[in-house]
Amino acid sequence: MKTLELDLDSRSYPIHIGSGLLGSKDLLCEKITGGRAVIVSNTTVAPLYLQRVLDSVKDFDPVSIVLPDGEQYKNLDTLNQIYTALLEQHCDRQTTLIALGGGVIGDMTGFAAASYQRGIPFIQVPTTLLSQVDSSVGGKTGVNHALAKNMIGAFYQPKSVIIDIDTLQTLPDRELSAGLAEIIKYGLINDHEFFAWLEENMDRLMARDKEALTEAIYRSCENKARIVAQDEKEAGVRALLNLGHTFGHSIEAGLGYGQWLHGEAVATGMVMAANLSRRLKWIQLSDVERIETLILRANLPIRYPDSLGVERFRSLMQLDKKNIAGHLRLVLLKGVGDAVITTDFSEALLADTLRHGSIDKGD
Amino acid sequence: MKTLELDLDSRSYPIHIGSGLLGSKDLLCEKITGGRAVIVSNTTVAPLYLQRVLDSVKDFDPVSIVLPDGEQYKNLDTLNQIYTALLEQHCDRQTTLIALGGGVIGDMTGFAAASYQRGIPFIQVPTTLLSQVDSSVGGKTGVNHALAKNMIGAFYQPKSVIIDIDTLQTLPDRELSAGLAEIIKYGLINDHEFFAWLEENMDRLMARDKEALTEAIYRSCENKARIVAQDEKEAGVRALLNLGHTFGHSIEAGLGYGQWLHGEAVATGMVMAANLSRRLKWIQLSDVERIETLILRANLPIRYPDSLGVERFRSLMQLDKKNIAGHLRLVLLKGVGDAVITTDFSEALLADTLRHGSIDKGD
Repeated sequence: MKTLELDLDSRSYPIHIGSGLLGSKDLLCEKITGGRAVIVSNTTVAPLYLQRVLDSVKDFDPVSIVLPDGEQYKNLDTLNQIYTALLEQHCDRQTTLIALGGGVIGDMTGFAAASYQRGIPFIQVPTTLLSQVDSSVGGKTGVNHALAKNMIGAFYQPKSVIIDIDTLQTLPDRELSAGLAEIIKYGLINDHEFFAWLEENMDRLMARDKEALTEAIYRSCENKARIVAQDEKEAGVRALLNLGHTFGHSIEAGLGYGQWLHGEAVATGMVMAANLSRRLKWIQLSDVERIETLILRANLPIRYPDSLGVERFRSLMQLDKKNIAGHLRLVLLKGVGDAVITTDFSEALLADTLRHGSIDKGD
Repeated sequence: MKTLELDLDSRSYPIHIGSGLLGSKDLLCEKITGGRAVIVSNTTVAPLYLQRVLDSVKDFDPVSIVLPDGEQYKNLDTLNQIYTALLEQHCDRQTTLIALGGGVIGDMTGFAAASYQRGIPFIQVPTTLLSQVDSSVGGKTGVNHALAKNMIGAFYQPKSVIIDIDTLQTLPDRELSAGLAEIIKYGLINDHEFFAWLEENMDRLMARDKEALTEAIYRSCENKARIVAQDEKEAGVRALLNLGHTFGHSIEAGLGYGQWLHGEAVATGMVMAANLSRRLKWIQLSDVERIETLILRANLPIRYPDSLGVERFRSLMQLDKKNIAGHLRLVLLKGVGDAVITTDFSEALLADTLRHGSIDKGD
């Protein structure tokens, strides 16, 4: 097992990565200080792993809440189901929530913990690669609104993150790839050595080699933890983590949540960010090709469906939370491992990027 | 105008109390740092005061959201109406919300600010006596759940509180009295001199004398600010502010939200707390009589309706957020101006208190 710490003063917490952790009573109970444990999971994950976690926390009178699975359920109605279950079980402020599932379960459980009785503790136990390297770390919690994604939520840190890589053995191929998109992102933002490591090890990752997965998750969490420790509430540098996300969220929202996986949309979004960066002459054509090649090797899409349409795409981008006073801000690249937050691009080049969905190699 | 400061390090903020403040551009704009101003109000308050506030913040491209009036609308559905309006107006993270109304508007707007895009700034402009002395100060925000009151929310501090006492001239008599309940509470908890001042000045307050109201509001906010500064998140002493509230919330929930005003329920709750304190021999019969007399002079109820029933009352009390590990905690009195948080009472005496709803003066 490898452990790293997210350093946020009194709200610091450990991130444990390893095999067999769901069965570790010590780890699961380490941060439960009393009261009751309530495990929130979904209909896909619960049959596989719920009983193991229930057994690990059996000293804390555990109950479980099993929600329907899918991004389309990440909303206020489902959140209210969690509140209702907690109230029906007479759960008080000493209750600890345990999020057992992917990013949707983690985000919703985190926001339920942030808001139930104005805040109770919670633990992240992410079971998808994407949530293990991204949403379970850093305290972004929330739900979607019908008009846009992740618009309702809180910055609220877990007491610990417990990543059992064994759960990746049951993960569908498409979700494994989606997780690799966020892993590639860390290399692109600020870690060109990690990007090169990924180029060397992509085949092992796609084959679910446990050693390679542990290393990739550790280095991803390390990158994320370093950025979050500098800027917990996204006043500045944390926005770098949204590389590919403004494009990606627009794809997800435009196609309807649940059509494309978040990681798939982010993968295409990163290619679009690289494309615009190339149009700005900030990066080389060879950089774009390296990025596209690695993303394709992870079996991820690099173009968005034409059906979405350029005008609707542009309009959806305007809703992004990173915008300031109506100005669209994007994370773009000055190189592999060198992302910047910028408003310094023309509408014309952005329109070209959206229209073609790919770099004009004759440009 | 009188101003006091709630001291919470980087989240400190001023509380301004005076006449004509809604028309003060300087005060209203003081804490708006950019972007847009969005005023959230209700159908009762908006026709009276919205235009004045819109004029004061006209440099910030203001829009308004007018919600239905009443505790029964303090729920996730109405909250979602706020989110929807903000998204439809393309409001970004630089938006400042202004809560113009009573406690329901303040609590909902505060929680909308806490959770919209994971947190945007907001300003409290309370227009009822109750919200001026209680809910607008201290950062408790949230909505009700169908099963219990204030179960969903956040601790989230405003950037300033602007109390225009002129708004009290249009307040219905019943709501004036409800506000006086919370004012009396501060005297009972920790300020016996203020309690004595209230005994001297109750007639002036009931006659809406502006000088007396300003003084009562100032001293109430001062009491509250001192306690909140010590214990923002209610880990300890802040729970004293809930004197009368565990009883009171049960009355509100039991009768159905909106039947009794919050302040009315708290008034009866304080009498019940005094009653139980007397049964415990912690206070004198004369103390109970002083409390009942002052509450009656404020035209507030001192008994709850028999229709509620003792068993349902006791069951509702069990849901209170102050409970720890299933043990009912109450705020009781060791004297006028000397409240304590305690679990040190028998179920039998509590049952007597609930059954009789009044002290057995022959006891």
